[in-house]
Order: sequence, then structure tokens, then C-alpha cells
Amino acid sequence: MITVNVELGERAYPIHIGADLISQTALFAPHIAGSSVTIVTNTTVDPLYGDALRSALAPLGKQVSTVVLPDGEAHKTWQTLNLIFDALLGSRADRKTTLIALGGGVIGDMTGFAAACYMRGVPFIQVPTTLLSQVDSSVGGKTGINHPLGKNMIGAFYQPQAVIADIGALRTLPPRELAAGIAEVIKTGAIADAAFFDWIEANIAALNACEPAALAEAVKRSCEIKASVVAQDEREGGLRAILNFGHTFGHAIEAGLGYGEWLHGEAVGCGMVMAADLSVRLGHLDEASRERIVAVVKAAHLPERGPDLGASRYVDLMQVDKKAEGGAIKFILLKRFGETLITRAPDEAVQATLAATTV
Amino acid sequence: MITVNVELGERAYPIHIGADLISQTALFAPHIAGSSVTIVTNTTVDPLYGDALRSALAPLGKQVSTVVLPDGEAHKTWQTLNLIFDALLGSRADRKTTLIALGGGVIGDMTGFAAACYMRGVPFIQVPTTLLSQVDSSVGGKTGINHPLGKNMIGAFYQPQAVIADIGALRTLPPRELAAGIAEVIKTGAIADAAFFDWIEANIAALNACEPAALAEAVKRSCEIKASVVAQDEREGGLRAILNFGHTFGHAIEAGLGYGEWLHGEAVGCGMVMAADLSVRLGHLDEASRERIVAVVKAAHLPERGPDLGASRYVDLMQVDKKAEGGAIKFILLKRFGETLITRAPDEAVQATLAATTV
Repeated sequence: MITVNVELGERAYPIHIGADLISQTALFAPHIAGSSVTIVTNTTVDPLYGDALRSALAPLGKQVSTVVLPDGEAHKTWQTLNLIFDALLGSRADRKTTLIALGGGVIGDMTGFAAACYMRGVPFIQVPTTLLSQVDSSVGGKTGINHPLGKNMIGAFYQPQAVIADIGALRTLPPRELAAGIAEVIKTGAIADAAFFDWIEANIAALNACEPAALAEAVKRSCEIKASVVAQDEREGGLRAILNFGHTFGHAIEAGLGYGEWLHGEAVGCGMVMAADLSVRLGHLDEASRERIVAVVKAAHLPERGPDLGASRYVDLMQVDKKAEGGAIKFILLKRFGETLITRAPDEAVQATLAATTV
Repeated sequence: MITVNVELGERAYPIHIGADLISQTALFAPHIAGSSVTIVTNTTVDPLYGDALRSALAPLGKQVSTVVLPDGEAHKTWQTLNLIFDALLGSRADRKTTLIALGGGVIGDMTGFAAACYMRGVPFIQVPTTLLSQVDSSVGGKTGINHPLGKNMIGAFYQPQAVIADIGALRTLPPRELAAGIAEVIKTGAIADAAFFDWIEANIAALNACEPAALAEAVKRSCEIKASVVAQDEREGGLRAILNFGHTFGHAIEAGLGYGEWLHGEAVGCGMVMAADLSVRLGHLDEASRERIVAVVKAAHLPERGPDLGASRYVDLMQVDKKAEGGAIKFILLKRFGETLITRAPDEAVQATLAATTV
């Protein structure tokens, strides 16, 4: 087991990474202070790992209840969030009740937001069961839900007590979801660490094959990099925006198609190709680097061309993105592997990129 | 104009108290950084003070929009909160958009919670137009909405940029709402400052008559006391619980009758009588002090007897209160004016208090 510490002062927490961690009572014990625990999971994950988690918690002698939500990004809504509140109030959960998010990014985001809001804040533990949530949404404290007019528009910055990233849980991950997680690994290398990007290119087959050692290394390095960025900018005032490389275009794809049509990681994979195209077009990135991004996105079985939403719809959707200010879209572009810049872009260049990178 | 500063480090903010402040552009200017403002108000307050506020903002050259919500505690729900989000997204509000809460406690709590959640946090200004919200909900950063199973169960601790408490706005306050505000003034004196409690007894007629000088003093002293308590315990770990004197019983009354039947302050007025009764019954408070509380509650035209919900329903409702832990109700009791204690209470004593203080 490897542990990455996210340094956030009194909100610091550990990320434990390794095989078969869900069943280890000792990893949960230090982080559950009250007398009750509510596990929040979904209809896909509960049959796979719910019993293992409940068995791990049993020796702690807590009152344990489970809320099973419908699966999928389409359910990341007020309505589903309210099912968590209904269950918490129904079981008389108090301010010391610990929530445990058992599932992927949607479960993590909703459980974290529920924990942030229930009685104005109760503790929670993340047990991410997808590669995407292990490398991405378990670090940084971003929680929230979608609104019909924009993704993750309603939420909170709220840190977990701990993250238990069980690499073993990735064995049951569908290939599309594995690829979606690899997209965030690629992003992390691209924006922050050229040597890690080289490593990803060299190990893409091992990652695709779900080899535990490669996955553990990818999760560890991604978490370290993200933790370092977040520690410098917890509430997204500046630096942290670089983590949204590929996300401005990606969010537009997700919102434009309707959440759940493409996986978040698939949209980010394609979004990185689009952002790299715009980076080259504006003279910031060389063509060879763009080609390496396209190649690794394809090698990870991710889409490298966006859907045909129409250019004006893309622009509309990007203007409502949280990073936009006064309607001006801020693009996260690449100068070279490990170096980004954040800038507006001329309409013509954006239009040209959309023409070149959508079907 | 008097200014009370709430000392919370980087989240510190001023409370300006005085007559006709809503129309003063200079009070708003320092606290609006972005290019747009969204005023959140209700159908009662907008016709009274909406134009004055919009005129005050006009010289700042911001894009100003207004969301008018239905009036009343019954609307402090997810559904109404979503109207704010719909409006913000519809007007392309961004992370620098400032929300202004123009109204009483319900508007303040909902606007504050919307500000806490919209894009994971945007700035907001409180313009409380009721005595209750001026003395109570504008200090402390508590925001939130109700759930059918409990009041203020979903929310956040989130501080405003500034509070503009316009005493002039109280002229249009219905007598019941004025009395409800005086309840929180009485509470503040009772728990924290015997001399202030004496002052309230001596000035209760002036407060009932809505005399500006008396109201300004009551608001100032209440805010100072609450600000001091909150500064010592921002997230309600301990000391801050004393501010809930009268609220454990009061919340049960509100929830038991259905939110909106009694005003919050009316329930707190009666709740203080009940808490004083329990304090005497458990040997903490002398009978003469209890009688002074009953007398001042009556003099403020507040109900001093609770509705007949049945004792077991009262207990059920108090067990789900946020201050309860593992089902044990924590009562805030009085030892003398200015001194409280927080304790559990034997069932028999609670039953006797309910028998003695309900109709």
C-alpha cells in the first residue's frame, strides 16, 4: 500500500492506494468518530463491493446503513441528492455520522456534497471504485451536482477524512470506464510532468490491460501531482485551473449531448485533442507534441473527434462554464508537456479548431 | 450609522446599522467586485425596497437582475432554492457575480446557501429587512433550507461580504414579525449579558413601538454579542450552541405545526419560557428569573405557552434536532442571566415542563 498525503492544514487527509483495501478495517477505524455510518453507493457497485465494505466496518460496532442510488451521470441531480438526505434524516443521522462514498465520481461528488450540506457539514470518506475517481475526483474536495444548464454548477469545496483507493476494484471496471480514467492520467502528465507523460506513453498497453502495478503507479503519480496543485490553490483561485486542461471543450460535449451520453473521461480525452489543436493554432505548442497527444488518446481507446453540435452551440456551452467570466471563455492551453497557459482565444481560432476536431 | 465588525480572519465582515442605508451606494460599492449582481427578494419586500436598492446600485454600472421568490418559511425548500439557480444560470452569472439578499431570515438563509453552492461559492451581501434577521440570521454565516423532517437540515456555514441592516426598513414590519425579532433580542440578553437583559426589560415598550434609537441599540448590542460568540466558534463546535437557548423547544413547535404556522421568533419566545421552566425544574435557575423571562416574553406580545402537539411528538422532534447526538437531546439551560449550561435532561423533567408550558 502507498499513501499520498494531501496537505491542507487542518483539512489534510491521506489517500491510501493498493490492492484489496476495501476489506481492511484498520484503514477506516481512525476516520470514524461517531456512532453511525451511512454508505452511499449505487445499484452497480453495491452488489460488487457493498458486502466487503460492510464486513470491514462490522468490527467497529457502528450503526451502518446503506443508501443505494441509481447509477449514472444522468442521476447527478437534486432529486437523487435528496434521496441521501431522506435516508440520513430517516435513520436519524447526526452531526457525527460519517458518510462513505462507495462508487465512482458521481457517487463521490454527490456524497461529498451531501456531507457538506447535511446539518451544514458531516465527515465523509471516499472509496472510489473507478480509475477516473481514484485519479481525479478523490483529490481536491470538489463536490456537487449538475444543473440542466451546466455541469457541476451546484456544489461545495469539501474535503474528505480519507480516500481509500482500492486498485483491486478496477478489475470489474468496464473497458470504456477504464479508458475514461486513463484520460485524466494523460491530462495530468501533459499539464504537469513531461517525464510522467513519457511513462504513460510507454505503459499505455499495461494500463489498458489493467495491470495492477501500472495502475497503482498511475494513480499514485496522478494523485501526487493533483494534491500538489490543490495544496497551492484549494479554492481554485488560480493555479488549480490548469487541472481543467481538456475540460472546457469536454464539458461542452457532455452538456451538449446530454450528461451520460459520453463518459466524462471520454469527453476530456477528446477535449485535450481540441485544446492541443487550439494551442498549436495560436502558436503556443509544436505540432509534434499535438500529434503525441492525439496518438496517446487513440491508444487509450478514447474518442479523438468531438460530436457535431454546431460551432455556436459549443461556444454557448463553453460560455456558461464555471471558468468563464462575463461570458469570456478562458482556455487552458499547452505550451509544452508540463507547461500550460490560460488565455482567451480569438473566435476564428476557436471556430477553426472546432471545424478540425469535430466529426 | 454604527458598524459592528465580525472578526473571522480572512472571512471578517462589517455589519452597518442605521436608518435608510439601503439607498446608500457607498455602502455597497466596496463589496461588489464583479460585473453583475443578482438581487434575491420576495413578493412582499420587492415592492417596498427593491427600487431603492436598484437605484443605489445603478451608479456602480453593474448588470443587475432580480429574482422574486414567494414569501414565507413554507417556501424555504429545494424547489424555491432552485429558482435562484435557474435565474443565475439563465443570466449567465459567473463566479464573481454578487448575490444580494433583500428580505428577512428566509431570504437571507436561502440566498446565502445559494451563494455557497453556486459554482461552489460566489460572494453575497445581506440586506436584512426584518428585526429578526438583523439581530440573528445576518450574523454567524448559517445558511440553509428546511427538509420535511427537520428545519435548516440542509445548509452551509458561509459568510457574507457585508451586512447592511437598515433600521428604517422595520417601519413596514407587521407587529407579529417585530415581536418575533424582539424574541431573539431577549434571548441574547438572557444568555450573555444581564445588563442588556435589564435594558430590554426597561425598553420593551420603546421596542414594541418601533422607536429607531431603541431598535438601533438592540440590533447593535445583539450583533456584538452574537459576533463575539461566533468569532470564538465559527463552526458550532461548542460555545456557539448557547445561541440556541429556546431553540430546541422552538424548533419542535415550528416543525410540529408545520413551518410558517408560528414565526420562528414566536417559537423561540415560547421555547425560552419552556427552557427556563426546565432550568428551574432541574435546579439550575431561580424562580424569580424564570418569572422575569415569562414577563418580558408576554410584554413583547410573544406566546408563552406551546401548542398541544403531545409530549411524545415534542420529544421525537427534538431528537432529530441538529444538536442531538445519537438521539440524546442536548438542552441549553439558564443558570442565571448571562450564564448557560448545556446538558441532557431526565425524561420526567422534560415531560413535566411540557405539561406545564403547553396549552
